[in-house]
Amino acid sequence: MAKFAVFKGSEEGKITQSTTTKDIKGDEVLIKVTHSGLCGTDQHKRTVDMVLGHEGAGVVEEIGAAVKIIKKGDSVGWGYLHGACSNCKQCLTGHETLCPDRAMYGRADLDQGSFASYAIWKADYIFKIPDSIPHEYAAPLMCGGATVFNALRTFDTKPTDRVGVIGMGGLGHLAIQFASKMGCEVVVFSTVDGKKEEAKKLGATEFITTKDLNDLQTRPIDALLVTASFQPNWSQYLPILAPRATIYPLSVSNGDLMIPYMPILLKELKIQGSLVASRQVHRDMLEFAAYHHILPIIEQFPMTINGIEEAMRKLEAGKMRYRGVLVA
Amino acid sequence: MAKFAVFKGSEEGKITQSTTTKDIKGDEVLIKVTHSGLCGTDQHKRTVDMVLGHEGAGVVEEIGAAVKIIKKGDSVGWGYLHGACSNCKQCLTGHETLCPDRAMYGRADLDQGSFASYAIWKADYIFKIPDSIPHEYAAPLMCGGATVFNALRTFDTKPTDRVGVIGMGGLGHLAIQFASKMGCEVVVFSTVDGKKEEAKKLGATEFITTKDLNDLQTRPIDALLVTASFQPNWSQYLPILAPRATIYPLSVSNGDLMIPYMPILLKELKIQGSLVASRQVHRDMLEFAAYHHILPIIEQFPMTINGIEEAMRKLEAGKMRYRGVLVA
Repeated sequence: MAKFAVFKGSEEGKITQSTTTKDIKGDEVLIKVTHSGLCGTDQHKRTVDMVLGHEGAGVVEEIGAAVKIIKKGDSVGWGYLHGACSNCKQCLTGHETLCPDRAMYGRADLDQGSFASYAIWKADYIFKIPDSIPHEYAAPLMCGGATVFNALRTFDTKPTDRVGVIGMGGLGHLAIQFASKMGCEVVVFSTVDGKKEEAKKLGATEFITTKDLNDLQTRPIDALLVTASFQPNWSQYLPILAPRATIYPLSVSNGDLMIPYMPILLKELKIQGSLVASRQVHRDMLEFAAYHHILPIIEQFPMTINGIEEAMRKLEAGKMRYRGVLVA
Repeated sequence: MAKFAVFKGSEEGKITQSTTTKDIKGDEVLIKVTHSGLCGTDQHKRTVDMVLGHEGAGVVEEIGAAVKIIKKGDSVGWGYLHGACSNCKQCLTGHETLCPDRAMYGRADLDQGSFASYAIWKADYIFKIPDSIPHEYAAPLMCGGATVFNALRTFDTKPTDRVGVIGMGGLGHLAIQFASKMGCEVVVFSTVDGKKEEAKKLGATEFITTKDLNDLQTRPIDALLVTASFQPNWSQYLPILAPRATIYPLSVSNGDLMIPYMPILLKELKIQGSLVASRQVHRDMLEFAAYHHILPIIEQFPMTINGIEEAMRKLEAGKMRYRGVLVA
């Protein structure tokens, strides 16, 4: 039995602190949280009575009787997925994030999260953090990193592809690094000019400020990652897509996807939904990040009610450079 | 030099007859048209001053000096594509239908088509008709067959997939046959009930009449071919798509594709644009059709102004069972 502090959303959008008490089952581990990333989806959930946070990093303090692959003292992290059935077609083919019975942030285990002093998760659904990645940098990889890596890796972007990244924020600044280290040319599209130097340092080949432009001038793009929090002006982007290009809408958004119809057929474009990474892809992501020294650029805040609310204000204002991390 | 009768569209939508005079170049052949299929895109072009028709079948009467792969007397057909640059990335990777310099129906070679007594095409862009397929049945395969086969073949539908076909018309009734012979379970969605028996004969596993239904009841669909002339009610279809399913919008349509956004991410759905088949896929389609006795169901009309207009009226009224063929 463990008892720990958690930070929750509330109907009026205030962050509240409370306490969760939970058993540690045989296949579970107790993790002392050291850091948590702050994701746009936490912002979406701040009006829900649930524990927030799903970019967790910490140290294992206790393990259940049946746990073999994790030991006390291990540095571990976790992301959106907490469990799956292990037996359906999706689970058996390495796509457990799509299991109909998946346990995911915002839908299951609402009594705990990474905005907390501790959390208890199934050992099979946490990830060892490579030694070379400090916890504060590992945390944002658990969702932000996994999200962009999944799009690039699972659907077979090639090293010879030109990758477009719309938006340079929490996801975008990681997408630039991953795509660049995969060997791709990377073209960043941003509404503002101020991030150009940083984009180049992260590996971008080109940086295009889209505001006030009608026609985007660049060679054809093979894979377009939409990481901005709004839907792009498709009439700008469709002409610069290569035949057979893939569009990855990565941001969470309500309503409809609306996109001109005929260009999809005439260039055989693909719109590919991509969620967070399944576990093997997530492991590959961490190893790839460690090997290539890919780290998020972070701003740190204390993991307190005030610290969380300040970080959320900054994120909402579009001022975060580039991922907020809460320090427990 | 050849001189032949052609049938054209006109601003007011009347079909007109005129004469085309053309040289036969060294890499070209002169084809005496015996049959032409009638496709929805011909209907779209009837208000344009151009020769109509792109599901041609006929017999080679003359060959240019450089032609080696085709000889006089060969039974041949042709479809949407008349030429490509042979040298770009798309051409060099077997995707010449996406060549930026492709010559295609409605955009190039407006002085000839398959609603005609003769046509002259590059030998490299026509297809030998297998001996077992009579010309009147081969013609609709040149676009209708190639369109549905390309979606099923090029993007790797698997024999274990459950294929959904929305709409049972010129494309749909061929999609049922191709998917069924590929080993797939095939579920047909139609607004009306009257085609059920025929769908089953063509190989459909299930036939669902969608009108007046809110929830479609069927096991998950892995590949959904949209062959109806209108966009489907996505709220009916998204719940029955399997995780990682692919949607193929195949009909020509103006305006925007509008589809609920979050289900695309949450199931990692793919929307895959698919045009007509590149040449090797087209050849595979003809061989597959011959081997499996896949034939369109046709209604024949004389290739005259009256015959063309009558066929177009029937197609527009949704009464064609299932592909109109003009007999020269």
